[in-house]
Amino acid sequence: MSKSKVPLPLASGASEAVAPCCPPLTERPFTAEEAETAARMFKALGDPVRLRLFSAVASHKGGEVCVCDISDVGVSQPTVSHHLKKLKEAGLLTSERRGTWVYYRVEPSALASMSRLLAVTPAAA
Amino acid sequence: MSKSKVPLPLASGASEAVAPCCPPLTERPFTAEEAETAARMFKALGDPVRLRLFSAVASHKGGEVCVCDISDVGVSQPTVSHHLKKLKEAGLLTSERRGTWVYYRVEPSALASMSRLLAVTPAAA
Repeated sequence: MSKSKVPLPLASGASEAVAPCCPPLTERPFTAEEAETAARMFKALGDPVRLRLFSAVASHKGGEVCVCDISDVGVSQPTVSHHLKKLKEAGLLTSERRGTWVYYRVEPSALASMSRLLAVTPAAA
Repeated sequence: MSKSKVPLPLASGASEAVAPCCPPLTERPFTAEEAETAARMFKALGDPVRLRLFSAVASHKGGEVCVCDISDVGVSQPTVSHHLKKLKEAGLLTSERRGTWVYYRVEPSALASMSRLLAVTPAAA
């Protein structure tokens, strides 16, 4: 994997990859298209279990987590896998299968994108 | 629709100690409680119309918008009002009625809270 800053084409299989979007929410009213893209990312984090999973991956040493290592969010393994897949579809995680297990990591451009969205611009202060 | 109306710590009005939630998502795995609180904010922004409305309010000169001034998001006035109410319930907006109209503004602590959530910490870089 290269470290280029080229906007997502997210990992293999993500059929609905989300391109990094948009200006800060405080900068100007969003267009319908921007809102569609950004809302998809927020929606993916709008579920407590997915948020815990995202946080578990994002905060993990080395930035990568094996599905097999996630067991403390109070849901079954299939449910974990389901939610991780949703996060991947929203462009927030990438995944790689190695042998039996799938490993997830945060898509840095997605995190940066959301961070930018919520940046507080001087105009809004 | 029939979600409980348990108010968030960020409720408008009395500027009672806003419980800012939470640490950056990249800092450590979220607890169930943190995830509940934060997911509610993300969920509120996980809808394109609500996101456009939030952006319209957040980017408006003076930081305040009259409901009567919002007409360009492609939905009816009652729908606008409905979504603004949802954003308020999630603690992202505050409102004030003056005469006939309701005026909305962004709850700064909510924006700061979400911004912090998505901050990219060195550990995650």
